[in-house]
Amino acid sequence: MGLSEQLHITYPSRNREVLLTVRPTGIPQPEHFRIVETDRPEPQHGEFLVRNIYLSVDPAQRGWASNEANYSAPVALGDPMRALAVSVVVRSNCEGLREGDFLYGWFGWQDYCVADGSKIVRRVNPAIAPLSTHAGLLGINGLTAFLALQRIGRPRAGETVLVSTAAGAVGSIVGQIAKLKGCRAIGLTGSNEKVDLCVAEYGYDAAVNYKTADVATALEELVPEGVDVYFDNVGGSILDIVVRHMHIGGRVVQCGTASIAAWDPPPVGLRNEREVLSRRLTWGGFVIFDHGAEFDSTADELARWYSQGHVKLREDIEVGIEGAPYAIQSLYAGENNGKKLLFVGHA
Amino acid sequence: MGLSEQLHITYPSRNREVLLTVRPTGIPQPEHFRIVETDRPEPQHGEFLVRNIYLSVDPAQRGWASNEANYSAPVALGDPMRALAVSVVVRSNCEGLREGDFLYGWFGWQDYCVADGSKIVRRVNPAIAPLSTHAGLLGINGLTAFLALQRIGRPRAGETVLVSTAAGAVGSIVGQIAKLKGCRAIGLTGSNEKVDLCVAEYGYDAAVNYKTADVATALEELVPEGVDVYFDNVGGSILDIVVRHMHIGGRVVQCGTASIAAWDPPPVGLRNEREVLSRRLTWGGFVIFDHGAEFDSTADELARWYSQGHVKLREDIEVGIEGAPYAIQSLYAGENNGKKLLFVGHA
Repeated sequence: MGLSEQLHITYPSRNREVLLTVRPTGIPQPEHFRIVETDRPEPQHGEFLVRNIYLSVDPAQRGWASNEANYSAPVALGDPMRALAVSVVVRSNCEGLREGDFLYGWFGWQDYCVADGSKIVRRVNPAIAPLSTHAGLLGINGLTAFLALQRIGRPRAGETVLVSTAAGAVGSIVGQIAKLKGCRAIGLTGSNEKVDLCVAEYGYDAAVNYKTADVATALEELVPEGVDVYFDNVGGSILDIVVRHMHIGGRVVQCGTASIAAWDPPPVGLRNEREVLSRRLTWGGFVIFDHGAEFDSTADELARWYSQGHVKLREDIEVGIEGAPYAIQSLYAGENNGKKLLFVGHA
Repeated sequence: MGLSEQLHITYPSRNREVLLTVRPTGIPQPEHFRIVETDRPEPQHGEFLVRNIYLSVDPAQRGWASNEANYSAPVALGDPMRALAVSVVVRSNCEGLREGDFLYGWFGWQDYCVADGSKIVRRVNPAIAPLSTHAGLLGINGLTAFLALQRIGRPRAGETVLVSTAAGAVGSIVGQIAKLKGCRAIGLTGSNEKVDLCVAEYGYDAAVNYKTADVATALEELVPEGVDVYFDNVGGSILDIVVRHMHIGGRVVQCGTASIAAWDPPPVGLRNEREVLSRRLTWGGFVIFDHGAEFDSTADELARWYSQGHVKLREDIEVGIEGAPYAIQSLYAGENNGKKLLFVGHA
């Protein structure tokens, strides 16, 4: 008798899937998706079935849905939208996985997913932190914040770390790690409420509303000696400004390019190679999925910080899969407050 | 009795100086300079007097003459043009320096220079290589090629290294070091003659005339798997093309930006941050003068290669200081063939 029977849990027999049906150019909108209902799939030998609990909403999904230059093949039209999820195993024909095991993996925007081991990103230990945390702080957001900052940003105590999307799922963690490392942390964010949040909640030394302030002037005032590390999630004209305010030997972590609406054809901007040269910058691109070997040890360290109260989190949890088609555009509009998740764990 | 008296060498008593008299925007032209004759200066206590033999002509001089973003303060108007030179000490009031010692240092575009030890870049041992070599291969050009390639490019055997200004004073050495390291070397250069020179003389596996070929198509054909290291001396639209042909994890060495006529106001070009991210590039700026501590050991290694016949050099030596005002523009027009020097050692 399986765990679900023991616990008298009944799972619905139908699966709702959020399919990508139209290829977006730019930010995915509701009309690019369709929600369909299908039979719950059955796992074959070597496979397992998960029930998704938290569907992750990530800026990177725009790239995954797109035909533009990216680090992975685009989601095929008609497939469920590629997404990470925190999920529970409900059937397993897979050695080493049991019903009731929690997983974080590539289970897509749907209720159920049949998968094999290749889809698992991390095993989830629900005892060390709330389940939702495993999709954010202990998922790709926290892992990205930690590993991109450490590997490319290489902040040293006393340096100034500037973070764009400073109140976002990645940025808010970057700012807190920077402070833990003895750095000064300055945030760029898109509303006065988020400016306050950055300072009061995430511990930034200062934050700037890039929509109302002149960023160049603000940087002159706040960091006259120049930025040592720019953790950039947005690219675009703000990047061009910041590059011209970097300290000699500074590092630019290119973690996202959220401010650019479309890459085909490539937009133009200020040429930055003279700044790279004369400021001796190191400008590095970061994709979290290159660093799988470090996920467990990094998540363990983040979980330790979390359990010691060193990391503050906000989660923006929406209930129901129906919100999925609207979720990415909402993220790009800055409407979320912290890590955006869809809770679909209800029966 | 000094060495010059012993050898019956008489040095002229007048000093010709190539003054920067007008601030250039863009590439320095003859009208920005004026040659004046003054009395030969006399060294005071702690100083020495050198007679310049080879005046170096370098693309970097454009930046030194300019008010634009750069890594050093611009040459003051009315001062001799900042330049490196290989020179001989003719009077010394400086401990540890004797008449007849050869030096490579910041002695400017002039016949004589009074200096103190801060102007010396390296001591020159004329026994290990021709004097002129100390201004090129064993001077900033060779040091730049070696250190920028090693520190930022980090080429591994079997990788493809692409070099712009491939036949130039820096580029030609980069290509040869890349081959010595077991890499494939591809050159970009500005004439068919230089294409031939790259392959026949410097050992590039292939070279492309960027003025007549479509660079994107050429790269598709020559490096379908993508460029691992781009050693860039030019920036601009070729950089934008190459960035889109980089292999995952590739390195871009920003060593020069010769293709850009002026930086104020900053010109526009394709936005490259998405390529930096999705290709996980490391794009680093290099200024040789950060690496003074490594000059002697690096020059020793280059001298060893030279003496073993592993490095081929071309030098473009013009006789007379009168050519100086024309020399930088000539370099930017690609008229030189190898390291450009002005020989001013005659009495």
